[in-house]
Amino acid sequence: MDMPRLTPLAESLPASVPFVGPEAIERTAGRAFRARLGANESGFGPAPSVIQAIGAAAPHVWKYCDPENHDLKAAIARHCGVAPENVAVGEGIDGLLGLVVRLYVEPGAPVVTSLGAYPTFNYHVAGFGGRLVTVPYADDREDPAALLDAVRREASPLVYFANPDNPMGTWADARRVNEFIEALPATTMLVLDEAYGEFAPEGTMPPLDLARPNVLRMRTFSKAYGLAGMRCGYALGEAGVIRSFDKVRNHFGVNLLAQVAAAAALADRPYLEEVIGRVERARRIIAGIGEANGLKPLPSATNFVTIDCRRDGEFAGAILRSLAERGVFIRKPMAPGLDRCIRVSVGPDDELALFGETLEETMKAVRL
Amino acid sequence: MDMPRLTPLAESLPASVPFVGPEAIERTAGRAFRARLGANESGFGPAPSVIQAIGAAAPHVWKYCDPENHDLKAAIARHCGVAPENVAVGEGIDGLLGLVVRLYVEPGAPVVTSLGAYPTFNYHVAGFGGRLVTVPYADDREDPAALLDAVRREASPLVYFANPDNPMGTWADARRVNEFIEALPATTMLVLDEAYGEFAPEGTMPPLDLARPNVLRMRTFSKAYGLAGMRCGYALGEAGVIRSFDKVRNHFGVNLLAQVAAAAALADRPYLEEVIGRVERARRIIAGIGEANGLKPLPSATNFVTIDCRRDGEFAGAILRSLAERGVFIRKPMAPGLDRCIRVSVGPDDELALFGETLEETMKAVRL
Repeated sequence: MDMPRLTPLAESLPASVPFVGPEAIERTAGRAFRARLGANESGFGPAPSVIQAIGAAAPHVWKYCDPENHDLKAAIARHCGVAPENVAVGEGIDGLLGLVVRLYVEPGAPVVTSLGAYPTFNYHVAGFGGRLVTVPYADDREDPAALLDAVRREASPLVYFANPDNPMGTWADARRVNEFIEALPATTMLVLDEAYGEFAPEGTMPPLDLARPNVLRMRTFSKAYGLAGMRCGYALGEAGVIRSFDKVRNHFGVNLLAQVAAAAALADRPYLEEVIGRVERARRIIAGIGEANGLKPLPSATNFVTIDCRRDGEFAGAILRSLAERGVFIRKPMAPGLDRCIRVSVGPDDELALFGETLEETMKAVRL
Repeated sequence: MDMPRLTPLAESLPASVPFVGPEAIERTAGRAFRARLGANESGFGPAPSVIQAIGAAAPHVWKYCDPENHDLKAAIARHCGVAPENVAVGEGIDGLLGLVVRLYVEPGAPVVTSLGAYPTFNYHVAGFGGRLVTVPYADDREDPAALLDAVRREASPLVYFANPDNPMGTWADARRVNEFIEALPATTMLVLDEAYGEFAPEGTMPPLDLARPNVLRMRTFSKAYGLAGMRCGYALGEAGVIRSFDKVRNHFGVNLLAQVAAAAALADRPYLEEVIGRVERARRIIAGIGEANGLKPLPSATNFVTIDCRRDGEFAGAILRSLAERGVFIRKPMAPGLDRCIRVSVGPDDELALFGETLEETMKAVRL
């Protein structure tokens, strides 16, 4: 049948959803989860001051948002101690990753990441025709030396490195990250994904050096600030690199309430501190639950704990499914080697308690 | 200096903003506009029921939004009398236009539109390396015959047609649109932009025929529903075509509050009817103000009135600047021939009254 033809690249892509959302699982199962601990959201919620700011701005949503994100950019710049021209705001890190790939990756170009790292980055690389080159994790950590080898071997224009890492929760210290940056070819752009940076120990994130035109630091309001549903993230980088986002971004893409909420979130430092404390406490609880059930929690610098189930991927998968059947939503790493683990996000005490009870039942069931 | 290199396409693009927002003009001028009548927003605001729904959902924004937009899609499908698989939801029509261009336009491919039609469509065409082919308006209307000629001559994979039209406010009746659709090559995708459809007379929008794989109907919550700042629009089309959006869209792109607000807006039919009535009344007021000042309002099927200033583009530009200096934000068409006009969006009575006073002063000033 004669019909409009997709471009060959579009034709080659699967119609996919990088993550099946918990809502979709709930719809299929016909019942709601009782604990939502799978998407590394902040179950502690956004700050009351942010909820109030959203409500106050709601009558104004008939206006288009400021396409320059001026006020939010200024607030981010103050927060980070940089200039507004070093800040690009986007629809979450997801949106920004798409733009970076589009700016730097030509069809067929090799793009380096770790096998098992963020799937949405891979989705964008495929979407613009890039060729994904992966290196394995080492000791459940992203391996800068292996990434560097691959970058050099392939003369890659783009490499992805998350610190702290998702899905493993592990991290490298700033010194190690800086060595990686120093060793990178000047022609390779590094996306340094710091979505979980607020949860990491002092000395994890290198100081901002925004003179360097081959590093983009990406941060988000989805995690520590509890605004995942608002879709707002930002990139910090050299001013010329930041300006290039204006070539391809959806200028009105960051919605008015997202801009308001993000700025309000930055203004509420005490709430951020409170959340960081609650996340640390929740990590200890999750780790304790894992240990009590004979499993091995990995150290975490994020808002989740990855737990080594000490057998293979099939076993960890059975645990995940059993938890889901009992109303507890978690996720798990999928790459070979990492897939022996499950990944449990922090949340309020009652949900963690439910996870604890349910894991105990689950371990009895899966060990039968 | 060695640094990461943009792709040749990205390198060739200007770092631009398709529209300078009123906020940017206000920042430059150092003062706020007193009447915001330039962006075809709905100064009547969103429905009180929608404002309430946003407030009620605000505490839940720590959750990622449903990447499948399930509930909103279902609501849109019910509203339009179609199946959910005929609906794609996106970050405004702007976001959806970018996806359509990406799906169907290869670098160098000719894309047809009218000279002076929606600049953001052109921005996306340039952004994916398409070659824009324009045909002139005829009698201040988009000219389907000329569009068709250009499509055939160029064997274009994509053509844009807005009905009702922005920036002129004119429209074609459904019969004429259907003739255009019937005459189009089956291999050419038509984007039929119906952003202003709710304001048009009965018989303007053709019945939905979603078996046809070369027409996408685009609609938005930005205009009649007063949700411009929420960034939510949708495309209606044949199920296979709709599925192809899943190849390239930012799955978590439509924010949680946007999904909630849009669904709530669809549920409040009485408010929509009220707004449509107020828009009709405001159009008459604007037209009356134009006539009282010796100008010629064009008929409008939208939420704005385009006013022929009866001289050249420079004269209309002087009127626009004079209004802006007096605190009234409007916009104007820029294409040769159309540029003799100014474009005034509907708004509350006090803003229209201010426009009236200010236009009178302005006409005295510019005629000196």
